[in-house]
Amino acid sequence: MTLTAGDLDESALLARIFPRLNSSASVLLGPGDDAAVVAAPDGRTVVSIDTQVQDKDFRLRWPNGHASTGFDVGWKAAAQNLSDINAMGAVASSMVVSLTIPSQTPVKWVEDLADGLTAAIKELGAGDCSVAGGDLSGGSEIVVTVAILGSLEGREPVLRSGAQAGDVLALAGTVGRAAAGWALLESAIPIADFQLEQEDAVRIFCRPRPPLAAGPVAAKAGATAMLDISDGLLRDATRLAKASAVVVDLDPEALLTLAEPLWETAALLGMDPLDWVLGGGEDHGLLSTFPAGIPLPAGFTAIGSILPGSHNSPPVTIAGKAPQPAGTKTAGWDHFAR
Amino acid sequence: MTLTAGDLDESALLARIFPRLNSSASVLLGPGDDAAVVAAPDGRTVVSIDTQVQDKDFRLRWPNGHASTGFDVGWKAAAQNLSDINAMGAVASSMVVSLTIPSQTPVKWVEDLADGLTAAIKELGAGDCSVAGGDLSGGSEIVVTVAILGSLEGREPVLRSGAQAGDVLALAGTVGRAAAGWALLESAIPIADFQLEQEDAVRIFCRPRPPLAAGPVAAKAGATAMLDISDGLLRDATRLAKASAVVVDLDPEALLTLAEPLWETAALLGMDPLDWVLGGGEDHGLLSTFPAGIPLPAGFTAIGSILPGSHNSPPVTIAGKAPQPAGTKTAGWDHFAR
Repeated sequence: MTLTAGDLDESALLARIFPRLNSSASVLLGPGDDAAVVAAPDGRTVVSIDTQVQDKDFRLRWPNGHASTGFDVGWKAAAQNLSDINAMGAVASSMVVSLTIPSQTPVKWVEDLADGLTAAIKELGAGDCSVAGGDLSGGSEIVVTVAILGSLEGREPVLRSGAQAGDVLALAGTVGRAAAGWALLESAIPIADFQLEQEDAVRIFCRPRPPLAAGPVAAKAGATAMLDISDGLLRDATRLAKASAVVVDLDPEALLTLAEPLWETAALLGMDPLDWVLGGGEDHGLLSTFPAGIPLPAGFTAIGSILPGSHNSPPVTIAGKAPQPAGTKTAGWDHFAR
Repeated sequence: MTLTAGDLDESALLARIFPRLNSSASVLLGPGDDAAVVAAPDGRTVVSIDTQVQDKDFRLRWPNGHASTGFDVGWKAAAQNLSDINAMGAVASSMVVSLTIPSQTPVKWVEDLADGLTAAIKELGAGDCSVAGGDLSGGSEIVVTVAILGSLEGREPVLRSGAQAGDVLALAGTVGRAAAGWALLESAIPIADFQLEQEDAVRIFCRPRPPLAAGPVAAKAGATAMLDISDGLLRDATRLAKASAVVVDLDPEALLTLAEPLWETAALLGMDPLDWVLGGGEDHGLLSTFPAGIPLPAGFTAIGSILPGSHNSPPVTIAGKAPQPAGTKTAGWDHFAR
């Protein structure tokens, strides 16, 4: 018989989770009291919160047969939150985790989630970050919320509102692969039939790899604006454009290059890979703007430029023209769209 | 027709929420970017996270006919998190809020939730605290998670592990009323039949009033240990006893005094009011220990004493004897108990 969450009381379940979490010097007082205490060396704390919901953000069983493991969900919870801290130019110091699970959830699934959190923290290079505390609740579906804290190390945060006309638009990390992976998981194509490109796409969807070194490096290099691409390049570039009162002009050649690793999968599913590049979120690439003329930091590729704000132009253009929605996903994700 | 969350996109829904939230000087950069920035004046941040789940922690419609409003749920989300910061002897600076809601949730319900958060922050005296950011997700049931940050103002945190033999055990706030309120809501007695005592119990369950001034005051007065009573006096006193390696001895006269405002309701429901006093959580009273001989700070009442740790004694006694479980709730709440 499978041991489930309902077989253990809360403290017994927590006792199985805590040893799987890493520790770091940033957490001055860890789990076990009413609250934790975390170092905030420059007198400020960066904070964000992000949630994954079963059957919205992941499925325990996908149409193509893949099962999202606890490890996947834990990894993604860590990764997407780490990405938010990165996008401010900050370094993560700690997380608090709230886990809502049905009583029939296997204890192994919860242990895997803890392992996935720890693995993402370590493999993505956020070893100064550890889990400072958490909360466990019963519910009818799995909901995983992480709130994350970080340190700006004395720097000013890089906002989405700082882009200037003349700046270079640059990307670190990938776009579109998680969306391709999601489309594959929702398809009828079994994993056994995947080639390397499809395996890569599903891996990025399940265990995104935001470029965590890039945020602080970009901040130090003089990035004028930064944004985590969580809802798709078009939608997130629009946010940057509106916040900065500029126009973001994307380079079509750069978009085609970003689409290259998606062609095979797009052909397989009868999709346009540019839809994924423009509309797909959840790779958690980092969109940044830099003053023209400075060398882009390692890991960044120029994908467009910043033009003066204009009432006559849409906030985002491709070679000066309004992008034409080619598919349903082009506008990015909306959690409540029917 | 009722406007629901599914009728609005995420940004339109957020635009209805943000104006309802208060602002405070602690939040250096508020909602609208990838993350917020919060002041941490003494170089440390206290952090905790707590979740409420529909049909576990609240019901949209209770057996007795009462409807938990968004205002109630928002109030409680704020109150129980503020209580965790208070129990460290700290002062809350900010919250980040994650809200998972079905698309058919009325927009009005979500707006009420924001109003409830704001009202609790203000009325409970936590005006330095404001909502720094949040996340909205779709799901099949309502899940509200708040992560809260606070400042120790240069003091050391008061842990649950610091109680010493000879200390006085003291309580600020109430115990048992929320449990009585919960029992009333789960009963067949309509609100129209409530007397003052029942109205009070339901009010405390729906909108708990943790004594937020008491935590920092107790810390300054020299409290040796502190704990938010969220899972019941017996269970939380046991945690304090085990963490401090002492025995907590409760005074039966004090317990009877705490039970006094519950007699009528207990008689109505055929319950023992001491079960609620000993086992009921969610009033979010503050359990503290103080060295003998110092005057208890305003708002605290002595309810027992700390004895040396003993292998032959249970961690919590009543006048030296092991408490006898009189009812199912005596052991406090367990989120996974079947």
